[in-house]
Amino acid sequence: MSGGSAELVAIGSELLGPGRTDTNGSFLTRRLGEAGIAVRFRTIVGDTPADLEDVLRNALRRSQVVIATGGLGPTIDDLTREAAAAVLDLPLDEDPSILRDLEDRYRRRGLVMPPQNRRQAQVPRGAEVIPNPHGSAPGLALRHDGRLLVLLPGVPLEMRTMFDASVGPMLPASGVRFATRILKIASLTESEVDHRLDPVARSAAPVEWTILAAPGQVEIHLRERVPDGGGNPGIDRIDRECAAMLGDHLFGRDEETLEEIVGGRLLARKESVATAESLTGGLIAARLSSVAGASGWLAGGMVCYGEAAKTGLGGVAANLIAAHGAVSAPVAEALAAGARATLRATWGVSATGYAGPDSGPEGPPGTVFVAIAGTSVRRHAALRLPGDRAAIRKRAAQSALDLLRRAVLGGDPA
Amino acid sequence: MSGGSAELVAIGSELLGPGRTDTNGSFLTRRLGEAGIAVRFRTIVGDTPADLEDVLRNALRRSQVVIATGGLGPTIDDLTREAAAAVLDLPLDEDPSILRDLEDRYRRRGLVMPPQNRRQAQVPRGAEVIPNPHGSAPGLALRHDGRLLVLLPGVPLEMRTMFDASVGPMLPASGVRFATRILKIASLTESEVDHRLDPVARSAAPVEWTILAAPGQVEIHLRERVPDGGGNPGIDRIDRECAAMLGDHLFGRDEETLEEIVGGRLLARKESVATAESLTGGLIAARLSSVAGASGWLAGGMVCYGEAAKTGLGGVAANLIAAHGAVSAPVAEALAAGARATLRATWGVSATGYAGPDSGPEGPPGTVFVAIAGTSVRRHAALRLPGDRAAIRKRAAQSALDLLRRAVLGGDPA
Repeated sequence: MSGGSAELVAIGSELLGPGRTDTNGSFLTRRLGEAGIAVRFRTIVGDTPADLEDVLRNALRRSQVVIATGGLGPTIDDLTREAAAAVLDLPLDEDPSILRDLEDRYRRRGLVMPPQNRRQAQVPRGAEVIPNPHGSAPGLALRHDGRLLVLLPGVPLEMRTMFDASVGPMLPASGVRFATRILKIASLTESEVDHRLDPVARSAAPVEWTILAAPGQVEIHLRERVPDGGGNPGIDRIDRECAAMLGDHLFGRDEETLEEIVGGRLLARKESVATAESLTGGLIAARLSSVAGASGWLAGGMVCYGEAAKTGLGGVAANLIAAHGAVSAPVAEALAAGARATLRATWGVSATGYAGPDSGPEGPPGTVFVAIAGTSVRRHAALRLPGDRAAIRKRAAQSALDLLRRAVLGGDPA
Repeated sequence: MSGGSAELVAIGSELLGPGRTDTNGSFLTRRLGEAGIAVRFRTIVGDTPADLEDVLRNALRRSQVVIATGGLGPTIDDLTREAAAAVLDLPLDEDPSILRDLEDRYRRRGLVMPPQNRRQAQVPRGAEVIPNPHGSAPGLALRHDGRLLVLLPGVPLEMRTMFDASVGPMLPASGVRFATRILKIASLTESEVDHRLDPVARSAAPVEWTILAAPGQVEIHLRERVPDGGGNPGIDRIDRECAAMLGDHLFGRDEETLEEIVGGRLLARKESVATAESLTGGLIAARLSSVAGASGWLAGGMVCYGEAAKTGLGGVAANLIAAHGAVSAPVAEALAAGARATLRATWGVSATGYAGPDSGPEGPPGTVFVAIAGTSVRRHAALRLPGDRAAIRKRAAQSALDLLRRAVLGGDPA
């Protein structure tokens, strides 16, 4: 019933540099999960023989399936074959059929194979050769002490094709898969969510429970090992319990975004929205317009960054700003009302505040008012948002969208 | 002469799921490199105590400096403190000053600390506490057998601030450092850059050379090992050679962004800009307003998503749209001119086009016109952008900003 656990090893000194990411890991994690195999470790290591051997030895000690990507090319830094042979104490033999294929590849392009490429025909004794339809480096599979070690090239297209054609069928049969779900929560902090959901989290097992915070959003990641072909009763139970505890704070699941949900509700209600943004400077409109088909319900928007833009473009009365300040609830509501009037939309949504680093006359960075306006509804939220300039702007946009989401959620009129 | 080697450990089961990346590794690799410490291993592990201990034990065996991020929060899956204490065989004590700080944080927000947060005050005996100015979880530094183990929160802002303030000074002195530079290039594809810079790349050694592409931007990452306190002559030489080959396509270095460079030029010229966006829907304004101090040169903006918004808010003549279509060079230029007139700015910048997934009457997704308008200058670019909806929008915003950058780069009048 168990497919065991896996470790992914990404090999290549370039992957240890700043600004590089291992893009193969996501693909392999997803495919292994579909086969009921959990990835418990991921390691990145350079092309140093001793480091590479250390990592492979550790991986084979603690994981049933080890998939290593990279280091199979023809250059002198490509040392994965040698390291695997050393760790498993196997000699390297030259495989004549690989050599023939390599030479053929060059011959077809009218070239002679450079002598160093002969290294790619070296195979640890007993290894199964995995064909590579898109490149010169074949893969290798080695079985040892009930463990499976698979070596694949690091080029994503080659790796994916080889995994799907040849590696999938080698994996231990499990009869199980990992079902996953993400629950998305707005307008509560991570510790508020943690506190409210504490009893659900404590009784989550055997479902794995992880809580994650992004600016303005908290997510619960659930994972359950279930028999192939069946449902995921544990996840469904926890979903119901969380929904009951969180009410409309739980806004979506999996890939759903706040902007998609708002757009979907507006479309269903045959309504539209316009934006008026000060500190968010276009972030709210950019998120709404990221939804395919947004032209059906997004009338347009205004970025009223300075005071002149607020009174001119935004239609806010100058005496309102004089009386309350540009960062205030009345100005936020006036901006929302101005956006809907100017752009002839059902709803207006707005944000005004200080993103920092400087404070303003009405408070420190993070002092933010978001508002919505409909035909008869006006509503605002006064916020004290933590974080740096980017985080404050992101949280403000999220809060404004969430205020709008709550308003359009039910059947109430604008 | 050697600062030794480092291992980065990213902790959190969510980091093992598909689609998640460890964003802290790049920052830490860069900073450690600046201190002459090479990262030789990076490991990702979940919140399972035995796995976490196995990874920390291995890391301390093979690396002089181990930096672990994540798993320091208040929830029951935050187990890094416990794992470090177990691996180093140290008892956990409650630190009264951490506890006081935690309680104060809640009190200032008018809240009572939930009891489970008390866990964050647990400290392995002898650990040095690293203050966290942006969050509740303090970091911890442990010295053992000539090794340094540092535990930091996984939240990037918190981690970075704490590293720079407290961890940097703890690192072993090395006498060398890795100098790095990123060259940023706009309006050329990766293969165009690769082709133009081929001779420079071939003679780059001993400087390491990596080329990377993001939507609308190509980057050259350079790295050179140099003695402490000296310059980086290799990087400087390559920088000069690239600048000569690329001309004004090379727009910035390291952390510089296109929007910062545009803002800096506008400020120096005492000019301002206003945006009018169709398919980018606020992305251009959001990028410009992300720059601290943008209120000095960003007048505001308009999102003219539908045709009504283009003729109404955007001030585009209806017969211009009828004659050329909403996605056309004349409409892009009229939008840019409308933005500068309505918002009384020196410059207007605009984008109109099809982001997809649907095609429009004037072409397939990726058909985009960007434009700028000044007092006497009007300029546009007709583009065929590749990628999905998100990539097309991002590339369009980048192209519009780059058109503006070239216009404000020199001393020419608007």
